[in-house]
Amino acid sequence: MTGLTKSAAHFVANLQYEDLPTGATDAAVRGIADCASVILLGLDEPVTSLVAGNAPRGADEAWALWGKLRTSADYAALVNATAAHALDYDDTAGDSHPSAVLLPAILALGEPAATGKDILTAYVAGYEVWCELASREQDKHHAKGFHPTGIFGAIGAAAACANLLGLDEEKAAAALSISASMSAGLVANFGSMTKPYQLGRAAQNGVLAAQLAAQGMTAAIDALEHPLGFLAAYSPAARVDRTTEPAFGRSWRILSEGPNIKLYPVCYAAHRMIDSVVALADATAGRIDAIRSIRVHLGHTQSQILRYRAPGTSLEAKFSAEFAVAAAILEGSVGLRELDDDYVKRVAVRELMARVERVECTEIDPQQSLFSPADHVEIEFADGTVQSGPAVRFAFGHASNPAGQPRLAAKFDECTASQLGEATRRDLFSMLCNLQDVRSVSELYKRAA
Amino acid sequence: MTGLTKSAAHFVANLQYEDLPTGATDAAVRGIADCASVILLGLDEPVTSLVAGNAPRGADEAWALWGKLRTSADYAALVNATAAHALDYDDTAGDSHPSAVLLPAILALGEPAATGKDILTAYVAGYEVWCELASREQDKHHAKGFHPTGIFGAIGAAAACANLLGLDEEKAAAALSISASMSAGLVANFGSMTKPYQLGRAAQNGVLAAQLAAQGMTAAIDALEHPLGFLAAYSPAARVDRTTEPAFGRSWRILSEGPNIKLYPVCYAAHRMIDSVVALADATAGRIDAIRSIRVHLGHTQSQILRYRAPGTSLEAKFSAEFAVAAAILEGSVGLRELDDDYVKRVAVRELMARVERVECTEIDPQQSLFSPADHVEIEFADGTVQSGPAVRFAFGHASNPAGQPRLAAKFDECTASQLGEATRRDLFSMLCNLQDVRSVSELYKRAA
Repeated sequence: MTGLTKSAAHFVANLQYEDLPTGATDAAVRGIADCASVILLGLDEPVTSLVAGNAPRGADEAWALWGKLRTSADYAALVNATAAHALDYDDTAGDSHPSAVLLPAILALGEPAATGKDILTAYVAGYEVWCELASREQDKHHAKGFHPTGIFGAIGAAAACANLLGLDEEKAAAALSISASMSAGLVANFGSMTKPYQLGRAAQNGVLAAQLAAQGMTAAIDALEHPLGFLAAYSPAARVDRTTEPAFGRSWRILSEGPNIKLYPVCYAAHRMIDSVVALADATAGRIDAIRSIRVHLGHTQSQILRYRAPGTSLEAKFSAEFAVAAAILEGSVGLRELDDDYVKRVAVRELMARVERVECTEIDPQQSLFSPADHVEIEFADGTVQSGPAVRFAFGHASNPAGQPRLAAKFDECTASQLGEATRRDLFSMLCNLQDVRSVSELYKRAA
Repeated sequence: MTGLTKSAAHFVANLQYEDLPTGATDAAVRGIADCASVILLGLDEPVTSLVAGNAPRGADEAWALWGKLRTSADYAALVNATAAHALDYDDTAGDSHPSAVLLPAILALGEPAATGKDILTAYVAGYEVWCELASREQDKHHAKGFHPTGIFGAIGAAAACANLLGLDEEKAAAALSISASMSAGLVANFGSMTKPYQLGRAAQNGVLAAQLAAQGMTAAIDALEHPLGFLAAYSPAARVDRTTEPAFGRSWRILSEGPNIKLYPVCYAAHRMIDSVVALADATAGRIDAIRSIRVHLGHTQSQILRYRAPGTSLEAKFSAEFAVAAAILEGSVGLRELDDDYVKRVAVRELMARVERVECTEIDPQQSLFSPADHVEIEFADGTVQSGPAVRFAFGHASNPAGQPRLAAKFDECTASQLGEATRRDLFSMLCNLQDVRSVSELYKRAA
C-alpha cells in the first residue's frame, strides 16, 4: 500500500473503535458535543432556513435540523453543517473548522445503524485524513483565496463516511478521489451567507462522494497526490509534500492537533485577549470609569483579521479586537447575549472601545501560524497605575488549555436554550459526553424531541 | 458599474435576444444542436445511469434523459451534462467544453416558460462570461491540475441561468459569486467516471447558484476579481488579469472563439491528423497493404495528451494518434462504429497502428495553445513513393473551418440512432436548427418522445 490516497483509503477502510488511542475519544467527544450545540444554535438562522427550504421532501433518509426536517442524507448534511457554522461559534483546528463538517455528514449517513462508537470512529477517521492533508502544505491556502474548510472538508467528510459505510479499500480510495474533485470555497465570500454554505457543501460533498463510490463510480486511485491532483492544484506556491508516506494509525492528529473549542462567539483571533482581560476582573471591578486606556498586544495577521475598530453591528463586532476587550471588561466574559446589535451600540461599550489601542507584533507562534506567540492586555487607570493581564498563548478551550466539563456544559446550555428545555439540554449533553454508550443516532434525536 | 463581477452581472441581467449580434445565434445553434445529440448518445452510459439513480424522485421540476426521468432542476442538469460528456464527443472552446455544461443547465431551468429565443440568449450569456474569465489567465489551468470545464463551467452555467431566470443585477452578481465558491474539478481524475461527473457537477452547481441567489442568498459582490477570489485562487502562477474592464456586449466571444464541433469521437488533439489522412483517401485507396510507414507531424503537448501508442481498448483508442490515423486510413473517417473494443483489437488496425511514427513539434499555435501550428501526415509506400497530406490548422468542425449542415446532420444521426427513429431524428435536428422558432423546451422533448 503506497501512495497517499491508497494509504488514506487503507486507514479509513480498516479503522475500528478498538484501534483508537487513549485520549482520542475524549477529544472527539468534545468536538462532537460542542458541534451538536452549535447546530441547534443555528437552526433558525436565515441561511439555514434558505438552504433547508431547498432540501428534497419525500426522501426518507435522514433528519436535518435535529429531528425537524426529513430529507435526503446529503441534504441533511448540508443543512446541519450550514447551521453549525452560521454563527461562527463552532470549533477550529489549524486553519479549519472540522466538527461542523464531519459531524453532520456522519449523522446524516449514520441514522439507520450507527452506534455512538461508530460515530466516534468515523469522526476520527475523517479528522486524521483532513489534518494529514492540511499539514503537507507550507503556505496558507487563505492567502491564495481558498477557504481551507471548504477544500479539505469534502475529503475529510468523505473519509468519515467511507469508514461509516464500511467501504472496502478500493471504494474508499474512490470516495476520497471523487471528493477531491468537489473541493471548493473562496475567502472572498467571507462575511456573506456563502461562507457557512461553503461548510454545508463540504459536508454534503463528502456524503455524495462516499455514496457514489459505494455504488461503483470510478475515480483515480491517486487523485490526492497525483502531480495534477488535489494537493498540487490547491497548493499556493507548489511547496507541498505529495510523496512522504503518512503515519496513519501510528501518530494521531487528534491527539497532537485536537479540536479547539470556542468559548466566545467571536473570531478565534480575539479569544486570547479576552482571556487576558478576564484574568484582570478583580483589578477592573468597580473601576471601569477610571480606565484611561487599554493596550492590546496582538499579532499583525490577527489584527488584520479583526478588521473592525469601531463596529456598528454584531456581525462586525465578531471581528473586532476593540469590541472583544470592551465586552470582556464590562461583562467579565463575552457570550451570545453580547453579540447583539443593541449591545454593540451601547454608550458604555462604545466609550470603552474608543479607549483601546492595538500594539501589533510580527513574530509568529510556531504552532499557530495566524497568531503571534501570545496576546496580553495592559489597562492604564486615571491615577497612572497599570495592570497587565497574563500573556496567553492558548485560549481557554484550546486543545492545549482545555475547558473543564462545567464550562463546556455552560456553553452547551447557552447555545441550545432557545431550542430545548432545561432538563432536555442536560440530558442531551450528558448523552453526548458518553457517546460510546449511545446505541443509535435516533436515540440522540429522540432525546431532544 | 465597475468590477468584473458587477460588469458580468450587468451584462447577464440585461441581455436580450434582440441584442445578439449577427452570427451569434448560428454559432449557438451549432453548439446546442450538437449537444442535444451527445446527450442522447450518452443516455445509457454507466456513469449516466449511476448519477440518474441518485436523482430525487417526486420532484416535479424538470426532465432528465430527454424526457425519461422526472426530477429536480439541479439533478436534471447534472444527469444531462454527465451524459453529454460521457463519450467525450461534445464540443470544445479553448480548454473547455461549454455546451455540455450550458445547455443542460438551461434546459433544466427553462422548462416552465423558456422559448427557443430565451434558450439562445441564456446560452450566449453563459458563453460570454465563461470565455471572458478563461481569457484572463496566461497559464494553463490543466498544468496545475484544475479541469477548466469544472472550474469555469459552474460560473458559465450560473450566468446562463441568471439570464434565463431574469435575475436583477444584484442577484445575478450573487449567483456568479456563489457559483465561484463551487468551482472544482481535477485533471487527476481524467480517464475515470469522475471526469464526466465533473461536467455534470458544473451544470448542477450553476443551477443551484442561480436558484439560491434568486431566493436571497448573499455573497460577495466581487468574488470573481477579489484578491482572495476566484481568478486569483485558481491562477496557476498569479499571471491573471483581475482588473481590466470587460467588453461585454461590445466584443463577442462567441464570434471570435465560437464552439468547435467534434466530428470524430476521439480526443480533439487527434482531429487535425484525421483530416490530413482523409484528404489522402484517393492516394491510399486499394493500396493499404503497400503502406510502409506513416509519419504523423503533431505538437509535443498534443503527443503527450494522446498517450496511448498501442491502445488495447476503445477508451485508450480515444487518446491515441496511432489509432486515429489507422482508423482514418482504413475507414475514410473515424466514427462511433470504430470506437469499439473489438474494432480496436482487429489485426488490420493493429498492423497499421504499428506502422505509425510520431514527429513532434514544439512550436505552438497562437490561437490553440495546446496544439502545434498545424498537423499533417506523410504516407510512404513500399515502392518508396511518399504522399503528403495537407497541413491542417483548424480541424473540420472548428469554428474557423465549420462543417456544413449535411455533415452536422450525419453526426446527429450517428449519435441519436440508438435512441430515436429516423423520422424523429430528422424532425428534432431540424427543430434545433431553427431554435429561434421553438415555443418551449417541452416542445423539444415531445418531438423526441
